[in-house]
Amino acid sequence: MEKNKKILNTGLRDVVIASTKISDVNGTVGKLIYRGYLVRELAENATFEEVAYLLLYEKMPGKDELASFKDKLSGERSIPDQVITALKTSPRDALPMDILQAGVSMLAHHDPDVTYSSRKASERMAIRLIAKLPTILAAWDHIRNGKDPVTPSPELSHAANFLYMLNGSIPDDDVSRFFDVCLVLHAEHSFNASTFAAREVASTRAHIYAAVGAAVGSLSGALHGGANTRVMNMLLEIGNADATEKYINDQLEAGKKIMGLGHAVYKVDDPRALILAPMSKIMGERINDTRWYEISEKLEKKAKEAFKQRKNMDIFVNVDFYSASLYYYMGIPVDLFTPIFAISRVSGWTAHVIEEQFAGAAPKPTVYRPESEYIGDYCGPDECVFVPIEDR
Amino acid sequence: MEKNKKILNTGLRDVVIASTKISDVNGTVGKLIYRGYLVRELAENATFEEVAYLLLYEKMPGKDELASFKDKLSGERSIPDQVITALKTSPRDALPMDILQAGVSMLAHHDPDVTYSSRKASERMAIRLIAKLPTILAAWDHIRNGKDPVTPSPELSHAANFLYMLNGSIPDDDVSRFFDVCLVLHAEHSFNASTFAAREVASTRAHIYAAVGAAVGSLSGALHGGANTRVMNMLLEIGNADATEKYINDQLEAGKKIMGLGHAVYKVDDPRALILAPMSKIMGERINDTRWYEISEKLEKKAKEAFKQRKNMDIFVNVDFYSASLYYYMGIPVDLFTPIFAISRVSGWTAHVIEEQFAGAAPKPTVYRPESEYIGDYCGPDECVFVPIEDR
Repeated sequence: MEKNKKILNTGLRDVVIASTKISDVNGTVGKLIYRGYLVRELAENATFEEVAYLLLYEKMPGKDELASFKDKLSGERSIPDQVITALKTSPRDALPMDILQAGVSMLAHHDPDVTYSSRKASERMAIRLIAKLPTILAAWDHIRNGKDPVTPSPELSHAANFLYMLNGSIPDDDVSRFFDVCLVLHAEHSFNASTFAAREVASTRAHIYAAVGAAVGSLSGALHGGANTRVMNMLLEIGNADATEKYINDQLEAGKKIMGLGHAVYKVDDPRALILAPMSKIMGERINDTRWYEISEKLEKKAKEAFKQRKNMDIFVNVDFYSASLYYYMGIPVDLFTPIFAISRVSGWTAHVIEEQFAGAAPKPTVYRPESEYIGDYCGPDECVFVPIEDR
Repeated sequence: MEKNKKILNTGLRDVVIASTKISDVNGTVGKLIYRGYLVRELAENATFEEVAYLLLYEKMPGKDELASFKDKLSGERSIPDQVITALKTSPRDALPMDILQAGVSMLAHHDPDVTYSSRKASERMAIRLIAKLPTILAAWDHIRNGKDPVTPSPELSHAANFLYMLNGSIPDDDVSRFFDVCLVLHAEHSFNASTFAAREVASTRAHIYAAVGAAVGSLSGALHGGANTRVMNMLLEIGNADATEKYINDQLEAGKKIMGLGHAVYKVDDPRALILAPMSKIMGERINDTRWYEISEKLEKKAKEAFKQRKNMDIFVNVDFYSASLYYYMGIPVDLFTPIFAISRVSGWTAHVIEEQFAGAAPKPTVYRPESEYIGDYCGPDECVFVPIEDR
């Protein structure tokens, strides 16, 4: 590698900084692969538990392996009383992503493996994080609404149990499976900003909770995980399908963005969006409220036309575009959309942390410590001369 | 920029990824500059409060500006009762850096500015973070020892108040000033791993608490902020100056590291180490216990000789090398060395977050979203074929 290569202020976009065996995003053809498997195939056939196992252990589980993994996950769902107490003393308007970030660090206090450094210890902590994040989130939603948290059910699947803890009733199989597919689709996406944050922290040999806490912080940003919330707020603002074209025109005239369009990597429709769209349609029909799907569908069609016409630009929908209406149909509060992203993506984050910690035969990554170019010109080319406070 | 530039698995070392006006590290000549000022001049002449102001507001404060800034800082020292309650319910063996990471997220719950996006709001939150982190840390040390936290004193300087909250008695002026110099020296160091984590999180437009929480996680790693603790544990293991040479030989024979030597950026003695060494000596003499300084001094000398002789290599001490014995002489518990790094560096982190958020005329950074190279070979060159669980 040449010394002092400069890639200034571009967010490392299009720069290949590490090798990984976890996932492959081919943005040109719209293909997403988790450890060898097309995400489309996984969404159609696999459960979140199978996908989390695949991400952590590098292979699809056998029958016994899956049963044992599900037992471990369901056995780790409860959270310490002290975390519940901390949630109960938090202001009710605290941001759910901040609650989750604090919760991750608090879980570290109670994990006996936190001072150990072995792949097995990291895997156990990963399972606990995957198991407990949904419980923190559902508990918070109850607590902020003045209700007691629902005790997790060890009988239910990961997806069904979350909806049960959130709504207090066992969801039917179709809704559970739709939510399960959402979890599968959001589980992993290579070096996106939150995963990169997790790996960056892990590269200093910080433990997995410290790394996942950083990832939650990164995902909370409006330009990253916050986008699904913003899509829903946009749909609510548009209000009905007839108002869609005016909305697009107004936004483009004002030089403003339309949420859920475009992606850092995909130059075609996001393969995840193609799976989410029909689920949103079906869910809308189920509850006789197709409005949000209809707005989304029309917005996609008309925005694509408008971008082509005005800017001669092809524009594509991303994963947030149809997940917004789908979550809304499931009765999930809009400000929990981003934390729900987190409770799925934690499976990818933990897999990446473990890869960063124990890459094995692959070239061992080192602490992420880039260089910067100093452009301070406070005292011209020389250093500033210190003037004592008495003389200032 | 050319597309798909590859810089694989090198932790971005020697890659210039962003421009900054905050600091300059010249590792070749051993020069560290904060916003135009040599850190050596600042360590000799300025207080931490002046340096924090310089980092946040891009200039040295005038008399009135400094007085007002000090008032703001001391007025923000107390932490919410709910945070104290959460500390009281945390297990006493929780890791102090985890306590700090959880604390940062909890502070977000109580900050009225957290949902605003303006430079002024970020500056107010930065002041609160700088003011409150020492209080969380000192409170935690009291709580884990079964004592009530000490209420911060608005009369004392930032440095003196921390030692007061930690020890329960007002430190004398010399010790306060030495600790103040430590805070000045650790305040900022360009794109080190924790600062990079903070900027990475801020690049998604996450708020400053989310970013600083990530930075705390990154700093906790053994290869980053954790190094000062490891230096002290090494000094304690060596035990006396006579055992130093044997220790060096044993480590080198076993192919093991000597802590506090070497740095990602400096190819000469760390300029901060040159200031810390004489302070460690003086503090040792003050309390009639020069042992830890003597071991450090002999270790530096003999390790340099040994590396030259065995490997024909010049090796240099870093910032952690003499700060370890210095903190120890001040009576600070060894497992608080890294959190103390954090309560200083938070001034640099917040300055970087604000630069990331409001770079103004400089090229606007974008979300850090690098690429990776997929080396998964789970099913040869093709994608894996999904096998239903029944058939596995």
